[in-house]
Amino acid sequence: MRAVVTGLFITLEGGDGSGKSTQAGLLSDWLAGQGRTVLRTREPGGTPVGVLIRDIVLHHRGEVAPRAEALLYAADRAQHIATAVRPALARGEVVIQDRYLDSSVAYQGAGRVLGGTEIRDLSLWAAEGLLPQLTILLDLDETAARGRLDNANKRFDRLEAEKADFHRRVRASFLRLAAAEPERFLIVDATEPVETIAATIRARVATLLR
Amino acid sequence: MRAVVTGLFITLEGGDGSGKSTQAGLLSDWLAGQGRTVLRTREPGGTPVGVLIRDIVLHHRGEVAPRAEALLYAADRAQHIATAVRPALARGEVVIQDRYLDSSVAYQGAGRVLGGTEIRDLSLWAAEGLLPQLTILLDLDETAARGRLDNANKRFDRLEAEKADFHRRVRASFLRLAAAEPERFLIVDATEPVETIAATIRARVATLLR
Repeated sequence: MRAVVTGLFITLEGGDGSGKSTQAGLLSDWLAGQGRTVLRTREPGGTPVGVLIRDIVLHHRGEVAPRAEALLYAADRAQHIATAVRPALARGEVVIQDRYLDSSVAYQGAGRVLGGTEIRDLSLWAAEGLLPQLTILLDLDETAARGRLDNANKRFDRLEAEKADFHRRVRASFLRLAAAEPERFLIVDATEPVETIAATIRARVATLLR
Repeated sequence: MRAVVTGLFITLEGGDGSGKSTQAGLLSDWLAGQGRTVLRTREPGGTPVGVLIRDIVLHHRGEVAPRAEALLYAADRAQHIATAVRPALARGEVVIQDRYLDSSVAYQGAGRVLGGTEIRDLSLWAAEGLLPQLTILLDLDETAARGRLDNANKRFDRLEAEKADFHRRVRASFLRLAAAEPERFLIVDATEPVETIAATIRARVATLLR
């Protein structure tokens, strides 16, 4: 195993439009106000190599085989954890990351042809076993999520264009993952007001800062 | 598992400068003369997605973490086997491939920080278990290999620039792999004349064509 982790590793999970970026920003501001150094990051695409990988996965026009896609996401993860996240944690920083292995399991495993267990094993191999101390799941039903994206008039990429049924399966998969690891997960109702959610998250994070 | 394989899958392995391309060309010409349809291909980079991946692995200027590199090679493999090799085999063609999972084990496993067994498992997961019916190992000691490359005045990429000791470990790893699967491997001495080697290979391939 790698060097001892001294910082705090927090991930945000949930479907597109669930407010992950907003909450990551509010939490980051609050932590900075407490004098903590914060690394805000994301997968895929959190490193220079990851940007190249993200480009292949999201914007390649031809077929990407399911296992190739899973392995590309895992490669992005390996690079990101080894070169960005672990060094920050070793310096004692707080890492706030948009999406991590739970997204891989929910999107690749539950949504597609590959099994969730093998996707999780692949991710853990890539990350040399690193798990967050806290994972915030912003839970939003598919209809509300789609409505938010339509309102924002965002361009849909390949994943976002997948059908509603897919999003329902992903949501159910996230909820199952949270139920299996209640100590790691904080589930919040993403339809609550932004400030209410932020306060709930701050209260939980405060218990993790000694 | 995937659809039944009806073609013939042959891989060529060995260090750079061992003559894999030359022998692949001669074998391909001979098979075509026998009326067989041949797909000549290679990893990394045998598909459009693979070309993009190859570019990241070989030419990225910053650090590529060892597990990220292994996963990128595995992604290339998954894409290549699913979209190029299996369809050709299903059509009954002969696939002649420059480098496959034995190269991954020899270069990544033996040469670097990762274990050969986990690299092999990763490759087999990527390829859904596909193994060649025949693997031709063009065995060449490191000094002879380096001399050939110097003569050819080839531009060295990142892997080729690694030191001589690395190449010696890779060669030993190839020989161990061949010893462990004698039915699959044909070891040839790459310092023999080109036509002698070609005849040895043809004789073995003939036994596999019914």
